[in-house]
Amino acid sequence: MSTVSRRGLLSLAGAGGVGAAAGLAAGILGRDAAAGPAEVPADTVPFHGERQSGITTPAQDRLHMAAFDVITEDRAELIALLKDWTEAAAALTAGREAGATGAVGGPYDAPPEDTGEAMGLAAGRLTLTFGFGASLFEKGGSARFGLEGRRPAALIDLPHFPGDQLQEQRTGGDLVVQACSDDPQVAVHAVRNLARIVFGKAQVRWSQLGFGRTASTSRAQQTPRNLFGFKDGTSNVKSEDTGLLNDHVWVPAGAPAPEAWMDGGSYLVARRIRMHIEIWDRTSLREQEGLIGRTKSEGAPLSGGTEFSAPDFDAPGRAGEPLIATSSHVRLAHPSHNNGVHMLRRGYNYTDGSDGLGHLDAGLFFIAFVKDPRTHYVPMQLAMARKDTLAVEYLEHTGSGLFAVPPGVQQGGFVGERLFAT
Amino acid sequence: MSTVSRRGLLSLAGAGGVGAAAGLAAGILGRDAAAGPAEVPADTVPFHGERQSGITTPAQDRLHMAAFDVITEDRAELIALLKDWTEAAAALTAGREAGATGAVGGPYDAPPEDTGEAMGLAAGRLTLTFGFGASLFEKGGSARFGLEGRRPAALIDLPHFPGDQLQEQRTGGDLVVQACSDDPQVAVHAVRNLARIVFGKAQVRWSQLGFGRTASTSRAQQTPRNLFGFKDGTSNVKSEDTGLLNDHVWVPAGAPAPEAWMDGGSYLVARRIRMHIEIWDRTSLREQEGLIGRTKSEGAPLSGGTEFSAPDFDAPGRAGEPLIATSSHVRLAHPSHNNGVHMLRRGYNYTDGSDGLGHLDAGLFFIAFVKDPRTHYVPMQLAMARKDTLAVEYLEHTGSGLFAVPPGVQQGGFVGERLFAT
Repeated sequence: MSTVSRRGLLSLAGAGGVGAAAGLAAGILGRDAAAGPAEVPADTVPFHGERQSGITTPAQDRLHMAAFDVITEDRAELIALLKDWTEAAAALTAGREAGATGAVGGPYDAPPEDTGEAMGLAAGRLTLTFGFGASLFEKGGSARFGLEGRRPAALIDLPHFPGDQLQEQRTGGDLVVQACSDDPQVAVHAVRNLARIVFGKAQVRWSQLGFGRTASTSRAQQTPRNLFGFKDGTSNVKSEDTGLLNDHVWVPAGAPAPEAWMDGGSYLVARRIRMHIEIWDRTSLREQEGLIGRTKSEGAPLSGGTEFSAPDFDAPGRAGEPLIATSSHVRLAHPSHNNGVHMLRRGYNYTDGSDGLGHLDAGLFFIAFVKDPRTHYVPMQLAMARKDTLAVEYLEHTGSGLFAVPPGVQQGGFVGERLFAT
Repeated sequence: MSTVSRRGLLSLAGAGGVGAAAGLAAGILGRDAAAGPAEVPADTVPFHGERQSGITTPAQDRLHMAAFDVITEDRAELIALLKDWTEAAAALTAGREAGATGAVGGPYDAPPEDTGEAMGLAAGRLTLTFGFGASLFEKGGSARFGLEGRRPAALIDLPHFPGDQLQEQRTGGDLVVQACSDDPQVAVHAVRNLARIVFGKAQVRWSQLGFGRTASTSRAQQTPRNLFGFKDGTSNVKSEDTGLLNDHVWVPAGAPAPEAWMDGGSYLVARRIRMHIEIWDRTSLREQEGLIGRTKSEGAPLSGGTEFSAPDFDAPGRAGEPLIATSSHVRLAHPSHNNGVHMLRRGYNYTDGSDGLGHLDAGLFFIAFVKDPRTHYVPMQLAMARKDTLAVEYLEHTGSGLFAVPPGVQQGGFVGERLFAT
């Protein structure tokens, strides 16, 4: 049971925010003083509940997502790993430190249980969301961890989409952790400590930071902009859309018994989408808006109205063509052209250095939650990869992952507990 | 002259912050409405002045630094590039858009002059700081751009330090831009637009994001923590230390005429320092504190006192050894062991994916400003690379750059103007 509150450290030190005199902290904190009673800071998101947090939670500003390869083949070790992660996640999301003694409260001659770089930082609405990849269930045709028959049918191997340039080291993974926080250091700290906890049992396969969110998941949030400079996620499913969430995001009850562990869960699709921003930046505003099908300033459909007006795909434009082009992104991504399916998007902008060819390596780290990727992701992505001029000419998918996200954890339970129930 | 204010967009739209109803923006902003009169937002740092901003400016939360290779050899084109960058930097740091017409105010059949992803965002105290690498002055033994004899003696080729594992694609560069802002999307937007402006004349050589600052440059700021979990930069030179700044950070007047263009400038040392955090995380708290020479919780010297107490390097410890070990970081980095030199540090934590071996690629992007790297960086780094157990066992330098940072720009002038005066 973790008992060290970073917030406690903060209030003890009386140095709460930017601009507080650093000198105030002096002389108050010794190693022992750090281990105060747990508090519940105001900027935390509850970890336990019917659903995992980090899905309908109003999207935080920053992302650190990491996928892990499990390197043990022992079922008990995997279960212990998930229990350890659950305990740590409950502590970290509450603004506490990892472990019972945290960064400085343990034995002087032992490694600290928390790495310490979040000492003094608030939780920044940290959420930790966990998922299982297909390779957790089977590898090379053999079942792992005694999970024969437990892989859900919806946890497919994603097909190769036209134009995919997937890099092996950015693709797949047995486990995934999505850490979102308004403070990137808090998100990185969480992933790092989860990685540390499972040393010898699992290791980082890929890791991705996102600096700017590209979707809103609450009507209280403004629609942010992606690196094409356009608002992204205007028609996203929001936390207030209870009906849409039930119909499109949450896995419904009633699956066959071996899959029932996913009742109330969801599927996380992650795609690292490199944007060829240098080419984009040399196209005209007319072409940009035509490719998107919305105005750049406000994000209104080219058929008129305001950002949240419904697009009129039949509105006539010039020379017999519709105002919103048949190959535009808004048309091809719209539910009305995808059998009515919706997804809850939660992506982030990224910039990962340069590409070695004189350009920034930048784009969108696409994240979506859907109840079934077979109906709610694959058909749309296939259509876009084939017909969407934007996708064909300006985007390149370089990483990919699909993960089964089990339902929420109850007090005393652990992530994915039902999967391991016999 | 740039006239488009992102803040103007913001206030026009009446949707000023997180949580503002996105719907408010609807219907107000057309393409034309965007081009309002310039305003001066409150969260901006002046661009013009005696010194470049981004050095003593209280350290912002986020970094995007990029180095560029100049691919033209034409002096007039280089000067035009610097004039264009100056104009854009003045606009961007004031919270305005790049170009006269910004992201949506230009001709519909031309590429927009601003890429748009910062529309609606405040400046977040954006600063843009420019520097010149040695390779701008000469390459392959030949002078470039008519700059014979103008390379300052202090703009040395850094020596190979013991343990250096520098990667060519993360090292060097003719030009550097340090973009700092409290909003990473604003910093990335600035670098991307500067890159766009110089298309065909210069291209990105390397690019580095930093998510958490690891030094304070003002006494009003708390000391942040690096990825070893320790406070970093306690004894940093601060903006309030006018005497230390004049003695250690700013290039003094009185250099020979060919170098006089650097009067009042500084030198920027950038080092990408991978931290072996997985190994660090398995060492005891005692060893960690011994290696640093300070406590982990508060950052006090092991000789006692509080964070800002002066270390007592003679205080006796066990078995005839000093309390602060002879090979500790705080001792080897202290001015008293480096001929009294100080530096102004301005680094950031980074995490760039995984290393392909199961670990996070994480560490410190070290940035320091000094008046002369020959006296103020090289000796200290040599000593640390040889004797500092921390540096030898836990750090790996993978990227490097040294840049001459000219003094500030006056209204109507441009970055480095005196260098090109005949």
